[in-house]
Amino acid sequence: MSKLPDVFTDSEDSQLVADAKKDKPEDHEFSYTERDVILYNLGIGATAKDLQWTYEGHEEFAALPTFGVVPQFAASSGISLGWLPNFNPAKLLHGEQYLAIKGPIPTEGNFVNETRLMEVLDKGKAASVTTVVYTKDRDTGSVVFENQVTVFIRGAGGFGGKRSGRDRGAATTPNTAPTRPPDAVVEEKTDPSQAALYRLSGDYNPLHIDPSFAAIGGFDQPILHGLCFMGIAGKHVLQSFGPYKDIKVRFSGVVFPGETLITEMWRTGDRVIFSTKTKERGTTVLSAAAVTLIDTDSAKAKL
Amino acid sequence: MSKLPDVFTDSEDSQLVADAKKDKPEDHEFSYTERDVILYNLGIGATAKDLQWTYEGHEEFAALPTFGVVPQFAASSGISLGWLPNFNPAKLLHGEQYLAIKGPIPTEGNFVNETRLMEVLDKGKAASVTTVVYTKDRDTGSVVFENQVTVFIRGAGGFGGKRSGRDRGAATTPNTAPTRPPDAVVEEKTDPSQAALYRLSGDYNPLHIDPSFAAIGGFDQPILHGLCFMGIAGKHVLQSFGPYKDIKVRFSGVVFPGETLITEMWRTGDRVIFSTKTKERGTTVLSAAAVTLIDTDSAKAKL
Repeated sequence: MSKLPDVFTDSEDSQLVADAKKDKPEDHEFSYTERDVILYNLGIGATAKDLQWTYEGHEEFAALPTFGVVPQFAASSGISLGWLPNFNPAKLLHGEQYLAIKGPIPTEGNFVNETRLMEVLDKGKAASVTTVVYTKDRDTGSVVFENQVTVFIRGAGGFGGKRSGRDRGAATTPNTAPTRPPDAVVEEKTDPSQAALYRLSGDYNPLHIDPSFAAIGGFDQPILHGLCFMGIAGKHVLQSFGPYKDIKVRFSGVVFPGETLITEMWRTGDRVIFSTKTKERGTTVLSAAAVTLIDTDSAKAKL
Repeated sequence: MSKLPDVFTDSEDSQLVADAKKDKPEDHEFSYTERDVILYNLGIGATAKDLQWTYEGHEEFAALPTFGVVPQFAASSGISLGWLPNFNPAKLLHGEQYLAIKGPIPTEGNFVNETRLMEVLDKGKAASVTTVVYTKDRDTGSVVFENQVTVFIRGAGGFGGKRSGRDRGAATTPNTAPTRPPDAVVEEKTDPSQAALYRLSGDYNPLHIDPSFAAIGGFDQPILHGLCFMGIAGKHVLQSFGPYKDIKVRFSGVVFPGETLITEMWRTGDRVIFSTKTKERGTTVLSAAAVTLIDTDSAKAKL
């Protein structure tokens, strides 16, 4: 049975950070059914034409791979950051997400999430905090998902912590795209109610539905969940190159529900580097992004 | 505490029917949350613009009135019809639905459904069976919804039962529209994935999503749930005339997900008679339909 270390010790950590890392949140249970799987898949744009993702009676019925962010969501967002100087949750931005899929995704399950503070960086004006969550099958104890979630908190830096992070493999590579034209491009229009549907998978932040709340955050209208358009882009990669065992993205821009997403993909060895932009505004919304393919031969055949 | 009679006795019933009516199904529990309310509302076409129906933080957050068919769905469809001669579930059609809303609809709740066989008619070649379900608040015992569900079973008639039903008030009036042009018309395009979303509210019949299953039923493609387009039409009436305390429809045609629905409405006293057709094929899909308004003064002001 895999287990997270109790503390991610780092000799460069300040005392403040070293103490915060000792906080070991309680394990968090998460159960789900086929209905939740379909709801998630619909939330990231699967349709009635994609029966393998929207109909539990289909012989290949499955969760889309990025479902792996769902069971850990409450666990990762429940970690306390109140110890940071000048912490203000309204100044928190979701910076990066890394998801490793370590086993087949059951279409219903009882999971347990184990969460730790992994890395805290002092970026001067901002703090960068990475939390790791292991999501395990409650009965077998085997790890199904590992998530590393990085958030930036503006105004919460200057506490004397280390400035640069460790190499965390696929979770930290810059994933620079080759200069050649993309090997595959997928375009998908989101629904104006995409966020209203996606939020039922567990992120009820009013920023994504309430115009007055969005205005407080400085947005003209509610914005789509970052993990929602990560899921949509992850679907594009799956459709173009087949299954993958991990996915990493940087959230570099906002998406308004109803906008069209364009995902450009480049195959390099066993990896697919990708970036996603909005068609309407040309803004890059996912960057430094890649997956590691499971079966590179079958992926090659798809090209 | 309201209670259904143990048996709906009728001196004209044949012995077969009289015996079937004595079957008293076990009470059926149904619990739901705000998430289920939002999911239902989205399933009948509410959007991110309709915050009162899609955002639990809205001060007027509410279930759309036809949510009343959801808690009883499993209870009403669970009643045994195997005693009918030549009963074949594939030959069952949902004929009519009557829903009375007897109290405010909680946005989350624990309900108990009490179900009885109400009326069985021998139409010669077909049987017509009406089931009644009282949906009660589990804690207070007060009735929140009454549903009367009529199904037709082709090929199951000829058992010597009575041919014509009793007057059941608003549940059986013919609701003939006046000859004048409608007082209000609402048009709404359904989503091609409308059925895939609606089914998550509890009706997982593959007829509504699986093309091969729909083909067995004689349809070129999966059809939208009757209770889904009843909900959409019920939303049109609510938007045009305000809240109502009951709604009755006859399902007279099929809707394919993605089609556009046009609901035409006529106000007559405290009632709104309506019918719904598809724009693309001109087929009437809801007929003999009406609601009884709660507040006729405010409804009048809306005209």
